[in-house]
Amino acid sequence: MAHIIDSEFYKNGWGTEEMRNVFSDRKRYQRWLDIEIVLAEVQAELGVIPSQAAEEIAKKAKVELLDIDFIKEGLAQTGHSLVPLLRAVQRICDGSLGEYIHYGPTTQDIEDTGMVLEIKDAFRIIFRDLCRLEKAILELADRYKSFPMAGRTHNQQGLPITLGLKFANWGAEVRRDMERMKDTHKRLFVGMLHGGTGTMAGIGEKAYPIIEGVMEKLGLEVPVTGWGSSRDNFAEYQSLLGVIAGTIARVANEIFQLSRTEILELQEPLGEHYVGSSTMPHKRNAETSEFVVAMTRIVMNNASLGLQGMMAEHERDTRSWRLDWHSIPESSIMMAKALQACTFVVEGLDINEPRITENLDMLHGMLFSEALMFHLGEKIGKQTAHHLIRDAILAANSSEKTFRELLLEDPEIGANLSREELDSVMDYSKHIGKSPEQVEAVITLSRELGFNDTEFLN
Amino acid sequence: MAHIIDSEFYKNGWGTEEMRNVFSDRKRYQRWLDIEIVLAEVQAELGVIPSQAAEEIAKKAKVELLDIDFIKEGLAQTGHSLVPLLRAVQRICDGSLGEYIHYGPTTQDIEDTGMVLEIKDAFRIIFRDLCRLEKAILELADRYKSFPMAGRTHNQQGLPITLGLKFANWGAEVRRDMERMKDTHKRLFVGMLHGGTGTMAGIGEKAYPIIEGVMEKLGLEVPVTGWGSSRDNFAEYQSLLGVIAGTIARVANEIFQLSRTEILELQEPLGEHYVGSSTMPHKRNAETSEFVVAMTRIVMNNASLGLQGMMAEHERDTRSWRLDWHSIPESSIMMAKALQACTFVVEGLDINEPRITENLDMLHGMLFSEALMFHLGEKIGKQTAHHLIRDAILAANSSEKTFRELLLEDPEIGANLSREELDSVMDYSKHIGKSPEQVEAVITLSRELGFNDTEFLN
Amino acid sequence: MAHIIDSEFYKNGWGTEEMRNVFSDRKRYQRWLDIEIVLAEVQAELGVIPSQAAEEIAKKAKVELLDIDFIKEGLAQTGHSLVPLLRAVQRICDGSLGEYIHYGPTTQDIEDTGMVLEIKDAFRIIFRDLCRLEKAILELADRYKSFPMAGRTHNQQGLPITLGLKFANWGAEVRRDMERMKDTHKRLFVGMLHGGTGTMAGIGEKAYPIIEGVMEKLGLEVPVTGWGSSRDNFAEYQSLLGVIAGTIARVANEIFQLSRTEILELQEPLGEHYVGSSTMPHKRNAETSEFVVAMTRIVMNNASLGLQGMMAEHERDTRSWRLDWHSIPESSIMMAKALQACTFVVEGLDINEPRITENLDMLHGMLFSEALMFHLGEKIGKQTAHHLIRDAILAANSSEKTFRELLLEDPEIGANLSREELDSVMDYSKHIGKSPEQVEAVITLSRELGFNDTEFLN
Amino acid sequence: MAHIIDSEFYKNGWGTEEMRNVFSDRKRYQRWLDIEIVLAEVQAELGVIPSQAAEEIAKKAKVELLDIDFIKEGLAQTGHSLVPLLRAVQRICDGSLGEYIHYGPTTQDIEDTGMVLEIKDAFRIIFRDLCRLEKAILELADRYKSFPMAGRTHNQQGLPITLGLKFANWGAEVRRDMERMKDTHKRLFVGMLHGGTGTMAGIGEKAYPIIEGVMEKLGLEVPVTGWGSSRDNFAEYQSLLGVIAGTIARVANEIFQLSRTEILELQEPLGEHYVGSSTMPHKRNAETSEFVVAMTRIVMNNASLGLQGMMAEHERDTRSWRLDWHSIPESSIMMAKALQACTFVVEGLDINEPRITENLDMLHGMLFSEALMFHLGEKIGKQTAHHLIRDAILAANSSEKTFRELLLEDPEIGANLSREELDSVMDYSKHIGKSPEQVEAVITLSRELGFNDTEFLN
Repeated sequence: MAHIIDSEFYKNGWGTEEMRNVFSDRKRYQRWLDIEIVLAEVQAELGVIPSQAAEEIAKKAKVELLDIDFIKEGLAQTGHSLVPLLRAVQRICDGSLGEYIHYGPTTQDIEDTGMVLEIKDAFRIIFRDLCRLEKAILELADRYKSFPMAGRTHNQQGLPITLGLKFANWGAEVRRDMERMKDTHKRLFVGMLHGGTGTMAGIGEKAYPIIEGVMEKLGLEVPVTGWGSSRDNFAEYQSLLGVIAGTIARVANEIFQLSRTEILELQEPLGEHYVGSSTMPHKRNAETSEFVVAMTRIVMNNASLGLQGMMAEHERDTRSWRLDWHSIPESSIMMAKALQACTFVVEGLDINEPRITENLDMLHGMLFSEALMFHLGEKIGKQTAHHLIRDAILAANSSEKTFRELLLEDPEIGANLSREELDSVMDYSKHIGKSPEQVEAVITLSRELGFNDTEFLN
Repeated sequence: MAHIIDSEFYKNGWGTEEMRNVFSDRKRYQRWLDIEIVLAEVQAELGVIPSQAAEEIAKKAKVELLDIDFIKEGLAQTGHSLVPLLRAVQRICDGSLGEYIHYGPTTQDIEDTGMVLEIKDAFRIIFRDLCRLEKAILELADRYKSFPMAGRTHNQQGLPITLGLKFANWGAEVRRDMERMKDTHKRLFVGMLHGGTGTMAGIGEKAYPIIEGVMEKLGLEVPVTGWGSSRDNFAEYQSLLGVIAGTIARVANEIFQLSRTEILELQEPLGEHYVGSSTMPHKRNAETSEFVVAMTRIVMNNASLGLQGMMAEHERDTRSWRLDWHSIPESSIMMAKALQACTFVVEGLDINEPRITENLDMLHGMLFSEALMFHLGEKIGKQTAHHLIRDAILAANSSEKTFRELLLEDPEIGANLSREELDSVMDYSKHIGKSPEQVEAVITLSRELGFNDTEFLN
Repeated sequence: MAHIIDSEFYKNGWGTEEMRNVFSDRKRYQRWLDIEIVLAEVQAELGVIPSQAAEEIAKKAKVELLDIDFIKEGLAQTGHSLVPLLRAVQRICDGSLGEYIHYGPTTQDIEDTGMVLEIKDAFRIIFRDLCRLEKAILELADRYKSFPMAGRTHNQQGLPITLGLKFANWGAEVRRDMERMKDTHKRLFVGMLHGGTGTMAGIGEKAYPIIEGVMEKLGLEVPVTGWGSSRDNFAEYQSLLGVIAGTIARVANEIFQLSRTEILELQEPLGEHYVGSSTMPHKRNAETSEFVVAMTRIVMNNASLGLQGMMAEHERDTRSWRLDWHSIPESSIMMAKALQACTFVVEGLDINEPRITENLDMLHGMLFSEALMFHLGEKIGKQTAHHLIRDAILAANSSEKTFRELLLEDPEIGANLSREELDSVMDYSKHIGKSPEQVEAVITLSRELGFNDTEFLN
Repeated sequence: MAHIIDSEFYKNGWGTEEMRNVFSDRKRYQRWLDIEIVLAEVQAELGVIPSQAAEEIAKKAKVELLDIDFIKEGLAQTGHSLVPLLRAVQRICDGSLGEYIHYGPTTQDIEDTGMVLEIKDAFRIIFRDLCRLEKAILELADRYKSFPMAGRTHNQQGLPITLGLKFANWGAEVRRDMERMKDTHKRLFVGMLHGGTGTMAGIGEKAYPIIEGVMEKLGLEVPVTGWGSSRDNFAEYQSLLGVIAGTIARVANEIFQLSRTEILELQEPLGEHYVGSSTMPHKRNAETSEFVVAMTRIVMNNASLGLQGMMAEHERDTRSWRLDWHSIPESSIMMAKALQACTFVVEGLDINEPRITENLDMLHGMLFSEALMFHLGEKIGKQTAHHLIRDAILAANSSEKTFRELLLEDPEIGANLSREELDSVMDYSKHIGKSPEQVEAVITLSRELGFNDTEFLN
């Protein structure tokens, strides 16, 4: 195979079997045939075609019964994406009953409705896996809601946070993604059977009952108009995946960054057979997280194709709609793997508590400079306090002594601040603000919105 | 000015004054100051700072009172985006009352909350203008719901549609965009006052009542956590603009294509002072539509930056959040202009009815070949009918005679089909399928969802 | 298969076998092994490893000899992209001779150098096919260099051009793409054997002679430094493909637009077994061109990933370099197909000369309004001439009579312009300006730059 | 102003005055007028228009002489981008001499040629600044060519490198960018004067001498054909900027990452009036570098618009070419600032040598595990050595003792390895491989290619 998501060797690193199956060649063909079967059934029920034909089509429109080589030859000769498949069915139907397959619709009706059904399956998988990821994250958030760690802005240690707050922030974003999925869900799952130019003329006088019947059987909604050139729903799906990918990218990248040798606060779980670097045995790379970032970047980039495809011309435009054949499977498959891999990392996350605590005190108390200024300011005036502390910071940066030591050594500060007082100010657990409350708010919100509530998917 | 949306000469072609005002420099500064004023008010109410300070801040934190040169010098010297503005206020406050401005929050709190307020104004404008566009489109859809025109697939005339169906299809997409806006609206309008690393520690013990008070006064929601590195809402906004831009691009591009000399079915309204080509006076260019396409492409492309910005590191990451300072104003401004221009074109659309009808018969009846096959097939067998008709098509392509003429001349067809019968089959109005019904469905749906219903924006 | 370029049914519509082979799984593995073989050879020549080992490795490092299941298991267990392949070789090597495979380099050395070799093959194919496309275009340009047709700006007929000029303009762009390839070629084909962090320490004291020997055998250059995190060359390749894709997109799209029912000047060649629309037998779709547009859009969009990947951190960054595993094969394969398909269309282009001439006169002489103004202006004054002609244009737009007829009927114009004079002014062949000269300039330039000159590829 | 690059307050953070001037409104207008002046001059020389007219145009076509309000009104009324400017000149010309301005060309000729001239100025600035950046980088590379530091792969300390090698790797990439600019330079600087549809008919019989004369005076080349719809050169320029942006992004991001509190090896220079965090006085943020990353991301993203714009239709297409009015100024301006800011950071880079050395030994010798294995393996067998060292690594990870200590304590290792021997193996300066040689190679190559060689720009 030439594409990495089909690679004999690497496909499981770039996709999941479950999601590949949603979009696999033969599954796709069967899906299309299933739509044709349902259409024939409904048309027979309404007396549009003979029931015998519908029965024969239901019996013969099975990929495993078809002559695949015949189809391939047909594709090579005609370049038509659907006709050879239909012909392969027709030729094994009794008599001329096969003529009633694909009675009225246009090619795009079948292929686009098929794509919607594929997306529906993909959607289900992604939502299920977001639920699982949210659960893993919120458990960690709860556990660490009061566990102090260094907060970093501009890559610099700034003020304390709690590890739980970091997790809760991820969880809140995952939850918003889930709510986004619910919103998109309302619009996305509509089919199409509107014929060549979307008037439904080809489906005949009973077009409405036929479409209603077919869509009900397929578990889809009837669209308000045909949408052959209206690709907004597919673009929305791809933008949605892009936003979810952005969330997952952030989580994975954060773990990757915090696994640095010099930080080493979070590490990926080690697989049993982890090889790591052949030449650098001491390393423990966060490669899964790196991979997640790579895949999610591709998903985000594909969202752009979804948007570009919207500018379709007239009643059908292959320059636009064929883009979906590339991007929707590719993005869904990489999204599934990225989610699965990210969840694996979060569920097995190796949290180096001592190192977190140690790093937090790396600046020997400088993270409290603001607090100290307030405390000391009450005694010797804010301005004076500010100068003394700033001097101690600068001194510490170019000295062997630590900030804490220099503070105590300074005569003016020392006169106003005992070692006990200093220790009391420099207590990280007193400076985590409303971190635990925020964690609780996130958990409460997710509970209210329904943990694991997948009912809407039915 | 160097950027086209600020160009002395061209800014009104690339933006609207109303939307530029939302994002203009001084409006932005006043917005930030308004947040500081509200914060001070609430802090005073809760006894955190003296009421005198809040009053003084409310009085002095007005851009028109500030020394702009002092601010610019401060920006040049410090590179800090907020401090010089605050200092400019502090220096005109009585005594040391100015010290109580910006008491607790971090820079990003003010700037991001300000951005949310800007987006809120932008959102309102865009929704209002979509309402107007939908109205214009649906009026046309209704008027032309049964007016036959050529449907085109792959740029080839295929089967008839009605002009109203084309409009309805646009209208349905615009409506979905409006519903997308309602969905996004639920998440987007939250502020932030969470301090340096998001714990709310800097805001002190009364952080929750303070934030609740401030957000209520600002018309925003309290977020479940601080979101300094959680840019998903901004990315969602930009993706939403991207999807809306895609819709507008399609409408404008369709008009552009149908205004070709060789088609000339739809034309932009002519301005009173239209100049057109200096060297080609016969031309009537659809330049407004072309411009709309150019601008919407930029909006779609910016959506990609929104997604890329999501992968922020730790508790704040300027590599990410500064992207929004570029893209959100730029996209909002171009979106506003594109919408306005598109609405102008649709409202004044010059519909060349005779030409539409003439084009529809350009192939002299070939658009009925399918219908003819069915009709004739009943008399002479489907297979025979198919061959005869195909032959007539091929003959017509390389002959002076038309398809219609050749049909009547053919002895076998002629024997089975009178001129009257042929005319009856070749009646466009009989082949518009469920076009009128689809138009009505779109109008009904929009009515149910509330034409012009902007209540949710309050 | 799940990806469209590997699809059992559609892969030949989205790629070429030749280019798929460049990037296929097993070819890639053999390429990596070939690099290891060459490395062992050179190391043996320089006395770094035993010659026996190099011979054994050369004999056994053949994909067809390896236990593929063993490799797959290894990949699943370790997640390492290279080690399982190497182990599969080592276990079939005599004694411990296999230990000398991969002696010194790091994984990325082999995989990135392999990618460069793949790109080299891809490059060759693309350049060869651009040569062929250029040839086809320039033949048409030459043939039609003086053949008048309507020039269109803003989709409106403007002034005459020649068909040959249109072709020459395509040809000039294709030629520039070829020159771009030559420029990029100078930088792109360097390998890497610099070890874990790029110092060459792992390759030992003889690192330089080893690398020089290996690169010479591989047909690559020695890089000035290791480039594990310097992805600029790959980004340049992808941007180059993006620009070429843009050219191809323009050509295909132009043909697509000119094949419209209402224009019908250029049409794709019909395949022998062309099916076209099942329900609309009269249509002759330019679907190949549409497909080319779809594929080239994907190639252009992938260029963005190439750029994003440049921001790699430290000495290796999987978040970046793994992107290439997706985009470089995908873009190369789609590029190859798009080029092949576009060339097929151009070589067999169906040029409807009568229709071109007919369309040119569709406005009954309005395309000469400028020329007429000059001509008439000399007799009756420019201003007067301008008014009279403008009036005739407006009248023609709302009248049954043509522009030409109205001109002759107008008493003031008629008095100054005989029918013969009018015919003489309204002679398209007099208004093609320097079209033929431009065509010749393009052909001359291509000849000077060396038609088909592929020497630089060796 | 509404766009950040024109912001009254922030424009100098997002652009440079020098580059803004290249693209400023009035400069652009004067540039267009200069082209018209030159055209009139050449036309007068060739007897196409009266010399008097050329002289009058040269005298009056000065922006400072024009009625700006008149122009603005004209723009508002006509929507035409050039006509109002020309009219403003004509009305101040003596008699009817102004009629000879813009005699023959089309609007796009002037505007696109003007854009090429703007790009030429931008190009010059960017190349000059890349020269300066290269110089700063190579000086550092030379100074630190043997200074050991930790090499990091996957964010983990891997093997030693030298700081100079890191710099050299940046330098090599900057140099390749410079060579790319030279390549692009050959194609980019062509003008256009080809009239409405590109045939040169409007310029008349003497079209070639006119164009040759004009281009020579403008310092541009004569194009092989008109290129109104051939946007490949502009796309190439934007992709080129994208690649350069990628390089700058990598450099800035590397500095940002190495400035982390926990690493602190490289720091940005402190400005004299640095404010930093108001609430976190101990921080020293690498904000300039962060800003550089943000701006370069925008430049990279705009490259996509350049490519999308290539698919223009027919002889002119505003949907495409107007994109350049947005992206080329925006990208050039942000590129200029990013380059300037990056150079500022590199030139003043604060290199914390002690910390680099300290970090390198953070793992207490684990970076030598490979070397140790070889050394020990010779005495006790490779396999045994591997196991012992691996055990020591694992033990060190969960013990208070360091790797080095554990090695010496281990009876089997201790028996075969004296403290002196261990120190000798664990000498970083012995493990920098060919780092200094690579540094020298980069410097030599740049010297050969001509440091600061800007001759080609003339």
